[in-house]
Amino acid sequence: MEPVKIGLLGLGTVGGGTATVLTRNAREIARRAGRGIEIARAAAREYRPELIEGLDQIGHIGDDAFDLVEDPDIQIVVELIGGYSPALELVMRAIENGKHVVTANKALIAKHGNEIFAAAREKGVMVGFEAAVAGGIPIIKALREGLAANHIEWIAGIINGTGNFILSEMRDKGRAFADVLAEAQALGYAEADPTFDVEGIDAAHKLTILGSLAFGIPLQFERCFTEGISRIDAQDVANAAELGYRIKHLGIARRSPGGIELRVHPTLIPERRLLANVDGVMNGVLVKGDAVGPTLYYGAGAGALPTASAVVADLVDVTRALTTDPNNRVPHLAFQPDELADTPVLAMESIETSYYLRLTALDRPGVMARIASILGEEGISIEAIKQKAPATGETQVTLVMLTHRVIEGRMNTAIARIEALDSVQGAVVRIRMESLSG
Amino acid sequence: MEPVKIGLLGLGTVGGGTATVLTRNAREIARRAGRGIEIARAAAREYRPELIEGLDQIGHIGDDAFDLVEDPDIQIVVELIGGYSPALELVMRAIENGKHVVTANKALIAKHGNEIFAAAREKGVMVGFEAAVAGGIPIIKALREGLAANHIEWIAGIINGTGNFILSEMRDKGRAFADVLAEAQALGYAEADPTFDVEGIDAAHKLTILGSLAFGIPLQFERCFTEGISRIDAQDVANAAELGYRIKHLGIARRSPGGIELRVHPTLIPERRLLANVDGVMNGVLVKGDAVGPTLYYGAGAGALPTASAVVADLVDVTRALTTDPNNRVPHLAFQPDELADTPVLAMESIETSYYLRLTALDRPGVMARIASILGEEGISIEAIKQKAPATGETQVTLVMLTHRVIEGRMNTAIARIEALDSVQGAVVRIRMESLSG
Repeated sequence: MEPVKIGLLGLGTVGGGTATVLTRNAREIARRAGRGIEIARAAAREYRPELIEGLDQIGHIGDDAFDLVEDPDIQIVVELIGGYSPALELVMRAIENGKHVVTANKALIAKHGNEIFAAAREKGVMVGFEAAVAGGIPIIKALREGLAANHIEWIAGIINGTGNFILSEMRDKGRAFADVLAEAQALGYAEADPTFDVEGIDAAHKLTILGSLAFGIPLQFERCFTEGISRIDAQDVANAAELGYRIKHLGIARRSPGGIELRVHPTLIPERRLLANVDGVMNGVLVKGDAVGPTLYYGAGAGALPTASAVVADLVDVTRALTTDPNNRVPHLAFQPDELADTPVLAMESIETSYYLRLTALDRPGVMARIASILGEEGISIEAIKQKAPATGETQVTLVMLTHRVIEGRMNTAIARIEALDSVQGAVVRIRMESLSG
Repeated sequence: MEPVKIGLLGLGTVGGGTATVLTRNAREIARRAGRGIEIARAAAREYRPELIEGLDQIGHIGDDAFDLVEDPDIQIVVELIGGYSPALELVMRAIENGKHVVTANKALIAKHGNEIFAAAREKGVMVGFEAAVAGGIPIIKALREGLAANHIEWIAGIINGTGNFILSEMRDKGRAFADVLAEAQALGYAEADPTFDVEGIDAAHKLTILGSLAFGIPLQFERCFTEGISRIDAQDVANAAELGYRIKHLGIARRSPGGIELRVHPTLIPERRLLANVDGVMNGVLVKGDAVGPTLYYGAGAGALPTASAVVADLVDVTRALTTDPNNRVPHLAFQPDELADTPVLAMESIETSYYLRLTALDRPGVMARIASILGEEGISIEAIKQKAPATGETQVTLVMLTHRVIEGRMNTAIARIEALDSVQGAVVRIRMESLSG
């Protein structure tokens, strides 16, 4: 059988990795797919030839991406440029031309996936995006196909390797956030501008995609609550450990009675959970289905070859499905497009969770009673409390509390009231907490 | 679109679970698959109606399985009877009649898969067996599709929940094997005849399947080395813990220079590995691919609903692919049938691994030197050694050693020579050890 002809947009980290994997494992991939996958053409502004295997086997390398998506020989366009523009225009144009698309672009899918999938449906073409979430872990395939029997209840994932590396180092070595971030940048784990990673935007892109696949709702990136890890203090990491917890930057999507929760934030989880032991730059996604129970998927969430592993898996899938009836293909968002639900995504204020709180108060009689009574008035019950004795001569104490579950809106009110007390110094630190057992 | 019509063979644990999941999640499954999945007919000798949801929606329940596989209305036959006969005859007859098959029967696939897949290929029908390995974990889909870009290097899996429950209890509570086995039987985790589980036969069935999917070789159950956990002693579990290891009953499939390793045996693994923390009845499979690196899949490996989750996922897959060209479907053993390799499966004697050894020797001068020199002569170097001081009045000491990697044949010779020493009492206990890092 003739090899399928693909065009690569981008020969950077992931593009170069994709060319390398397709070259290195060409024979094995063809033994699986039943035919070869040939890079007929690539478009890249600049690339480092020494990092890419099989460059000499690429039919043509140019720099005009818009020309590539018009090439009638190309059956599948692989978009590995990243960002919104010109990635969106290129993908839309490829679809218009009746080409299938494979992309690793999480930002693009989270923000423009609805329109991309609608266009693809109209043209009867496929858009693969396994590489957009959790790198090489086949989590999209698991959710969309492997768990298709299940009513998914929730997902909790460590889906940003940079953030997980930073939190793992803070815990293992008691280091400060800024210190580890600088090291991560030196190691190449974090970008010069680390905002996307440490402020949770990258994780929110991925969570948005996972939430749609799990619950059959349109992509709604703008509704995802996002809090980063840049304000996590070494003392909170240590306090969590003392209490039997670890702090992980989680993306959580949950079906709750009022709607869908979509939230990315630092989270205390019990240290015995497998997810709590996913360390360093690795990713892990825990999915709870009503039939299967909890399942976990673990692996490298980034990097040239792991991401290429997912890109090429999509290429094999698309290759196999080239001749199939478009209506019988796996739907882009797991559910048939006319079966998506309008279940609302909840505002953070109406989501229920439990909390870790830390505050500094003057070491005076009655302070603790005052704080406890505010919490009680807001319907918040305390599960554990730890008061750190003041050093000799100090007039302040640090209070650490774990609460039972309560609506975030009530907690906001309680925190505002506590912060308004004369005897409380500065802001109350609040980190959400999940048992991941239910 | 008309619902697809399936026939269930068996309404026991998994059959009942499958009917329950198809009923409970009917709407959500149809929203994904694009059409309903209807149990037109079931055949079962006996079943417990109180455990099954949706019995009243099954078109016809009888007890003649051979009649069901002749029914022209049935498009997919779901074999959930287990065992070799009449399961094999029923599956072959269904295929002859041009029906697709979904099965949870690991023994059947491991032993007769080659002929079943050949017959299915001839008839252009699909045989789904996701439920045959690791219950609800979509590991077959991950290997066959999600990791299709990779040259798989090795797999190490905890793929028998009963065995893992027993080893977890032995470790957590210092209990003896027989004691925990009795409890597992009382809890319903272990069968009245636990041989299949504790002697590793069930795991060997599953590993045989995983090995073929990973390496593109025909199923060769008879070549799988199998050692159970029934001789694991509480003191070995404790010694392993002291040295920073846990004992897990692993199925290991590895590509090594001379061929393929397929082996099931108790294994010491470093306690920090995620796989070492897969406890209780849960399963976990670690897969190392050349591009993706290590990935881990975790979940319930047995039980009515988790197994049904996999059966129904296969049903959705088959439903979607009903109209596709048989040559473009995912091949049964991951590789195209005419692309399977004749790479030999290695005999255990020629496999290299490292070892935990325990022996009892008389507390006499020169004994240790004698043992060390035998090991040295056989090319075995010692990584760690621990001698437990004899109790007052005792004349025997216990020696625990960890070795570096060596060919099993050399180790067999060394052990025979050590056991022949006058000063060594009884048999040398040998447990294989893997770092799972390479």
